[in-house]
Amino acid sequence: MPASYAYLGPEGTFTEAALRTLPEAATRNLVPYVSVQSALDAVRVGEAEAAFVPIENSVEGGITTTLDELVAGTPLMIYREVLLSITFALLVRPGTKLADIKTVSAHPAAQPQVRNWLKANLPDAHWESAASNADAARLVQEGQYDAAFAGEFAAALYGLEVLESGIHDAENAQTRFVLVGRPARPAAPTGADKTSVVLWQRDDHPGGLRDLLGEFATRGINLMLLQSRPTGAGIGNYCFCIDAEGHISDRRVAEALMGLKRICLEVRFLGSYPRADVTAKDVSAPRPGTSDEEFVAASEWVARCQDGRF
Amino acid sequence: MPASYAYLGPEGTFTEAALRTLPEAATRNLVPYVSVQSALDAVRVGEAEAAFVPIENSVEGGITTTLDELVAGTPLMIYREVLLSITFALLVRPGTKLADIKTVSAHPAAQPQVRNWLKANLPDAHWESAASNADAARLVQEGQYDAAFAGEFAAALYGLEVLESGIHDAENAQTRFVLVGRPARPAAPTGADKTSVVLWQRDDHPGGLRDLLGEFATRGINLMLLQSRPTGAGIGNYCFCIDAEGHISDRRVAEALMGLKRICLEVRFLGSYPRADVTAKDVSAPRPGTSDEEFVAASEWVARCQDGRF
Amino acid sequence: MPASYAYLGPEGTFTEAALRTLPEAATRNLVPYVSVQSALDAVRVGEAEAAFVPIENSVEGGITTTLDELVAGTPLMIYREVLLSITFALLVRPGTKLADIKTVSAHPAAQPQVRNWLKANLPDAHWESAASNADAARLVQEGQYDAAFAGEFAAALYGLEVLESGIHDAENAQTRFVLVGRPARPAAPTGADKTSVVLWQRDDHPGGLRDLLGEFATRGINLMLLQSRPTGAGIGNYCFCIDAEGHISDRRVAEALMGLKRICLEVRFLGSYPRADVTAKDVSAPRPGTSDEEFVAASEWVARCQDGRF
Amino acid sequence: MPASYAYLGPEGTFTEAALRTLPEAATRNLVPYVSVQSALDAVRVGEAEAAFVPIENSVEGGITTTLDELVAGTPLMIYREVLLSITFALLVRPGTKLADIKTVSAHPAAQPQVRNWLKANLPDAHWESAASNADAARLVQEGQYDAAFAGEFAAALYGLEVLESGIHDAENAQTRFVLVGRPARPAAPTGADKTSVVLWQRDDHPGGLRDLLGEFATRGINLMLLQSRPTGAGIGNYCFCIDAEGHISDRRVAEALMGLKRICLEVRFLGSYPRADVTAKDVSAPRPGTSDEEFVAASEWVARCQDGRF
Repeated sequence: MPASYAYLGPEGTFTEAALRTLPEAATRNLVPYVSVQSALDAVRVGEAEAAFVPIENSVEGGITTTLDELVAGTPLMIYREVLLSITFALLVRPGTKLADIKTVSAHPAAQPQVRNWLKANLPDAHWESAASNADAARLVQEGQYDAAFAGEFAAALYGLEVLESGIHDAENAQTRFVLVGRPARPAAPTGADKTSVVLWQRDDHPGGLRDLLGEFATRGINLMLLQSRPTGAGIGNYCFCIDAEGHISDRRVAEALMGLKRICLEVRFLGSYPRADVTAKDVSAPRPGTSDEEFVAASEWVARCQDGRF
Repeated sequence: MPASYAYLGPEGTFTEAALRTLPEAATRNLVPYVSVQSALDAVRVGEAEAAFVPIENSVEGGITTTLDELVAGTPLMIYREVLLSITFALLVRPGTKLADIKTVSAHPAAQPQVRNWLKANLPDAHWESAASNADAARLVQEGQYDAAFAGEFAAALYGLEVLESGIHDAENAQTRFVLVGRPARPAAPTGADKTSVVLWQRDDHPGGLRDLLGEFATRGINLMLLQSRPTGAGIGNYCFCIDAEGHISDRRVAEALMGLKRICLEVRFLGSYPRADVTAKDVSAPRPGTSDEEFVAASEWVARCQDGRF
Repeated sequence: MPASYAYLGPEGTFTEAALRTLPEAATRNLVPYVSVQSALDAVRVGEAEAAFVPIENSVEGGITTTLDELVAGTPLMIYREVLLSITFALLVRPGTKLADIKTVSAHPAAQPQVRNWLKANLPDAHWESAASNADAARLVQEGQYDAAFAGEFAAALYGLEVLESGIHDAENAQTRFVLVGRPARPAAPTGADKTSVVLWQRDDHPGGLRDLLGEFATRGINLMLLQSRPTGAGIGNYCFCIDAEGHISDRRVAEALMGLKRICLEVRFLGSYPRADVTAKDVSAPRPGTSDEEFVAASEWVARCQDGRF
Repeated sequence: MPASYAYLGPEGTFTEAALRTLPEAATRNLVPYVSVQSALDAVRVGEAEAAFVPIENSVEGGITTTLDELVAGTPLMIYREVLLSITFALLVRPGTKLADIKTVSAHPAAQPQVRNWLKANLPDAHWESAASNADAARLVQEGQYDAAFAGEFAAALYGLEVLESGIHDAENAQTRFVLVGRPARPAAPTGADKTSVVLWQRDDHPGGLRDLLGEFATRGINLMLLQSRPTGAGIGNYCFCIDAEGHISDRRVAEALMGLKRICLEVRFLGSYPRADVTAKDVSAPRPGTSDEEFVAASEWVARCQDGRF
């Protein structure tokens, strides 16, 4: 029996579609879970090899339920990320025409993406929220609503027809998903990698956060995400989920993490993994003075000084 | 007819309870709105003098719907903040006993706060989510559910009894609310003030965010909130909602804002207003070199140098 | 009777030659003094309108006697600077040939500049130090030595002949001189200006000096000189003489000085004056965010925020 | 035959007195040299095991001839430092009384230290500069002058009497001397150490020097000396001689040096050696996050993360 990947279900959602873009997904048993928490718990207890969940999108930013699960509890690690462009199809029972549609349904998160389309094409349709876009499709199949906004791939699953596709109010609407597993050696660096950490400040003083970010900045490391999350110690107490360029095996990243470890109350390493947005050939060279070669040379030079040989 | 304050309804929620702690609320017409957006729009179009909405809580951090409304659209300003400790009461129809309760309801946000209490006291009760805690109370009144978790103050409104009060899983659970109006002169400084801004980076490079925070840090200004929000330009593009110590009429704050204005693509001023967590006597003195007196003295000294009189 | 300019004498030195490059020198009574201290004191007591003294050269760096005089005592200000390329002529009594020269003399500072030439051309000549190059020339005139290294212009003054000119071991040997007066309004900015200050740290802690330099760096201001000088409070206690790009009437410079004034124990303004090395057309534009226009715009924006008009 | 220590002569100077405070000096052949350069060259060519020269004093700051010799040429290393308080004795031929003194002599550097004493006690005495204080004493012995200012220890050497001792205008007048040898393993750390380096900037831009100092500051390392010296590439081009707290075997110092090595054009290590001003018990603990233990722990943590074991 193959190992299983838990994912945020139900079937037919964008999450499943994104997961299926991973080659290894074809050899795993893909199991939908009702929540991010339950999918990640399946990994923690060993029920699943990994979990595939959304972590960031272009409308909501960092997805807090996922971040909060990664920030707390038994440590987990991110091994892969997938970027999926989000465009909606309008799914109907076979034979339904645009003029027949009185009710439409989808997950509330879909609403900002289809609002303009609705106003232009179905100004009088009544909106009903569903627990997921796939659920909305199911309810259309069952005759409760006339049409659902969902990924085009959901049509076949629920015996529906695509009446319109490519619906998206915002250009560049994307969701980022991650494959999360139990801690193990990170994937080898590809030259276009990302490192995720959570930082807790030792104390709160002017410049505290600036100094944390300085550990990245002074080593020429760009940040891709900075999301504050409550620590649970009361309002105004935050930790910081950070995605930074580079791989923990890059010397500049390793030294930045060491610096953070020394000055933070706590640092949680969430993994180093290949970037989904670019490949190595598109990544600009490290800033002068921050390449692995320069780190090694500097380290050897100090060793020689310590020995008096120079 | 008195001016009206819009607030996130319905009646009987914590938002209303928080709003009523403001003395001026007694002289206004308090009008519930169905969403943060509609409450703020009421201010924008002049239908309400101000809107009162939640902006941060100890579980969720920054409340993104509120922040996103303040970040975009016609500029608004924050004039007051209120901190409310969140503890729940279990509300039932008169005569209901604990043993009678089969179904409980509340807004989903209440669930993490009452989970332990439920497990210990009503392990078999079925949870049904409601649109708000007040709605849950109304549904109990109408007989649909047996009990609702809501603020104690909601009991009278819906003819219910408090079967248990002071329910809260997490200590220090608090929500912060703000009173938002159209731009006008900020309230006078009290000595314990807070300034809110939104920052958009000019470009994205290593150290960019560190340098923005440096404008506060070098002037000894502590930050209370740093919440990234998507700019709408695609995944990974963020602006930053920041709450900083001090008032825009404090010289160190004014100069920090000027510095940000110069190096940011855009800065949106969201107001300077009294802090709800402390009063002036609890605020530590500005770091040496950052008091108003020192700013004034330095400015006068430079003016004298420019004139050659020293 | 014209106002007089004091200068570091005697007549016939590079200092006098440099002074005569200033157009206004033609209208002043130029008076040699025996020391930098006496020349500056002449200004302090009102005996001279200004003093012209060397302040930096490419071999010695900052000239400490001049810097120490400017750092302490009654405040003075720099109004002009002059750069002079230093090449030596070998001066002899008329008729003297190279083969006749047994003794050469000059100020000790000349020695590093003529050492190679001596080795190649007069390997057996005996060196005798003189109080100044001009004094060496005078002693040659009086027959005490056979040849003097001095500026070519000194030949006529002492009735000597130039046996060889253009002698200089180091390329780019230059000395910088300054015209120093009593405090008054600085010269108008030219677009290629320099500002000189002396900084005393408030206390000594890791990062103290870094933070002082940060006041320049965060405003895009380059430094041209950083020379530490003892404060007189015991070994290891230093103040810092700094030359920075720009004019005190530039907003970025004014704000940097204000910042320094606030965080330093003491700041002494030594003047803003035109650079001698470049003209306005060769100066690169201020870094984005640091131009006068951007400072003014930022200041006006904050004023509007303070008024609630935006 | 014992190894020899070269020192800046002649005999009877403060340099010799300072050298004799080193226990190992008793077992070496102490050889005076006429200049700092010749003493250091004796080490470079293997004629002497080490050279003992002044490097900083409370009046002049960094002694540029010594610094320039260490900055350029074949690398040398500092192994020890000695601090000597400078007070002068007035030395006379036996039998001379104060009223007999018409001429006094000393090295010009002594003048600022004895000026007030002279004014009060010998207002009419004529000052004659000598090449060294010891030379002045010799010239008194030979009858050329009536009195010399020199170290009390010079009296015996030249057959003179101490007429007055403890003469010093400035309190805390001290000179710092260093023992310089060929590169070898630095002395073991004592807990109160100092590390000397020379830094050349890669390029000159706003914030360049600030960033160099940041390598020390972010690791909690205090600086004791920052002396700019011309690079020889023309006026305004400087390298920086820096003395920093700590020993190259301290992790925070080693990492700071690595950082400098990466971002500087060149770094010259001048040694780590015990501080003469304090002992380990007077040195404050490293700033939190910068102790060796914390560096080691952070390094091990990153190694564990790289292996996925945490």
